[in-house]
Amino acid sequence: MIFPTIDTPSVLVDLDIAEANIDRFQSYCDAHGLGLRPHIKTHKLPMLARRQIAAGAIGITCQKVSEAEAMIADGGIDDVLITYNILGADKTDRLRRLAERVALTVVADSATVAKGLAGAFQGAARPLGVLVECDTGAGRCGVQTPAAARDLALEIARLGGLRFAGLMTYPPIGREAAVQSWLQEAKTLIEAAGLAVTTISNGGTPGMWQAHEVPAATEYRAGTYIYNDRSLQARGLCGWDDCALTVLATVVSVPTETRAIIDAGSKVLTSDLLGLQGYGHVLGRPDIRIDALSEEHGTLHAERIGLSVGERVRIVPNHACVVTNMLDRIELVRGARHEVTAPVMARGRVW
Amino acid sequence: MIFPTIDTPSVLVDLDIAEANIDRFQSYCDAHGLGLRPHIKTHKLPMLARRQIAAGAIGITCQKVSEAEAMIADGGIDDVLITYNILGADKTDRLRRLAERVALTVVADSATVAKGLAGAFQGAARPLGVLVECDTGAGRCGVQTPAAARDLALEIARLGGLRFAGLMTYPPIGREAAVQSWLQEAKTLIEAAGLAVTTISNGGTPGMWQAHEVPAATEYRAGTYIYNDRSLQARGLCGWDDCALTVLATVVSVPTETRAIIDAGSKVLTSDLLGLQGYGHVLGRPDIRIDALSEEHGTLHAERIGLSVGERVRIVPNHACVVTNMLDRIELVRGARHEVTAPVMARGRVW
Repeated sequence: MIFPTIDTPSVLVDLDIAEANIDRFQSYCDAHGLGLRPHIKTHKLPMLARRQIAAGAIGITCQKVSEAEAMIADGGIDDVLITYNILGADKTDRLRRLAERVALTVVADSATVAKGLAGAFQGAARPLGVLVECDTGAGRCGVQTPAAARDLALEIARLGGLRFAGLMTYPPIGREAAVQSWLQEAKTLIEAAGLAVTTISNGGTPGMWQAHEVPAATEYRAGTYIYNDRSLQARGLCGWDDCALTVLATVVSVPTETRAIIDAGSKVLTSDLLGLQGYGHVLGRPDIRIDALSEEHGTLHAERIGLSVGERVRIVPNHACVVTNMLDRIELVRGARHEVTAPVMARGRVW
Repeated sequence: MIFPTIDTPSVLVDLDIAEANIDRFQSYCDAHGLGLRPHIKTHKLPMLARRQIAAGAIGITCQKVSEAEAMIADGGIDDVLITYNILGADKTDRLRRLAERVALTVVADSATVAKGLAGAFQGAARPLGVLVECDTGAGRCGVQTPAAARDLALEIARLGGLRFAGLMTYPPIGREAAVQSWLQEAKTLIEAAGLAVTTISNGGTPGMWQAHEVPAATEYRAGTYIYNDRSLQARGLCGWDDCALTVLATVVSVPTETRAIIDAGSKVLTSDLLGLQGYGHVLGRPDIRIDALSEEHGTLHAERIGLSVGERVRIVPNHACVVTNMLDRIELVRGARHEVTAPVMARGRVW
């Protein structure tokens, strides 16, 4: 039986693979003179963030204030970028306390957000660094034009308590030339208005090996690269052997010759499809489709399922980051050896 | 501002609505002489399970041993059915300890599962009640034919430590006549073999108002009925006013006149679609589509979005049960009044 000491369903991370993934992309960033600022949403583990920093990362990226709080609690992390519009006195007050402990940068894409941040940082020992978030084509947050980026940069520079620090984008996949041109134009406009653009933060694991095609960027945020997953394998960005995160599940029922049911459902694998068919890849069994999930059941089909009740399978999920968020604990392994069970410190930190 | 004391994103449950939902279906079950055994997966809160029992429920349904452990910890719940094939010494040992504290029934759909249970319950003060899980057409777990149900019932009856207690099915939606005929045939076969079939457990919120069309069943398991959700509204089973669970979110960005971004993404709303378009219903704004989710961003579109940064929205998610599982805490409200923040005791209990 695989990992007999680990109860199922469980999320496993192979540290050997994760460390190799960390080092591989760090080398690429080093070679291109690009700062690497890993997004911790994928692992949510301070120990892996510290490993990323030891390899050469310039700091970490978080999405929420509460994630940053959880990540820095144990020390060893002193540079944090929160790539999220932070609103409301509760959150901006916590942000101010956070800024007393680490070098902190946040983003804003509207004057409303910038003013809220400024209000909380009046009289702070250090002004809060703020990047203007730019929508370079992905259609999520961000100012819509380079001119709007300049206008918001000027607004931030005028507001007390804040320091305009540069630009940030979550870019569309595969459109590096357009992203470069957008960011370069914004930078030129802002510099022409008399402000320095010290940081330009680009990101996204799918485009990480094309990061150098956006030379305007000074740093790159990637999250999933540390674990990889089925969505990245499908894009040709990794092989199954590069997938550090797997779900260990037990076959609980084999109702027919073509169907088996496992004890990992949407409460572990999640319903994220990311454009794929099915909910994961059963290692060693490419013929099996994970067709359907209930909360606690995964339904597997194959022409001949060939599994027995009690047998274990190991699954590469579609999307590693969301799987990490489902369970309070994660099993750290190296090859076939179970190293330790670790609490997922920043799990469920949406605030 | 709606609920100014509650941080966003948060999951809200209106207790007035939940209690009305509990009482409405309890009345139906009472009128049809059907035992109601609510599935706690929807709320994961012992206090609401006790409210369901106070209204007349005969006990609760859990999916996993760890859910049952969490639900009974505070007392007040003394009858538990776990509708899951339980495998492995760790889980069956915990099951035996659980059986010393409550009236416990589980299911099995194979001799392998039954033998594992029997092994753990050798010498137990009371034999463990086991229902044979039947696949009446839903294509998940379960024996495939009434004859196979009889054979497994006989096997369970032969094994020491176990007591054959009856049948259980998670039925296909809208096929009550077929389910009735399947269960009746199995019952007849098993009785002809000399065993009593004391319990027949049917379930599923989508078919709950047709529960009486399966008269072979002695009890009914429903989960989502306590909260309702967008999937049930789409089936015509409830109105928006009957939806007890909502997600409170803040607009963090309004990049264009047709788009807004909220601070609830897949880490709160989940990617469950249940056959629907979009990820939820914004109360009071049927024109808005929640088109896309990232982990921390929800992307809203409308012909004119008409929302401001900092504004709050309330969303009925597609699937209430999975939303309950995302956050460690839930906000209990009555109308516009915030009653209390409660820990979601059985969250993430997949073991």
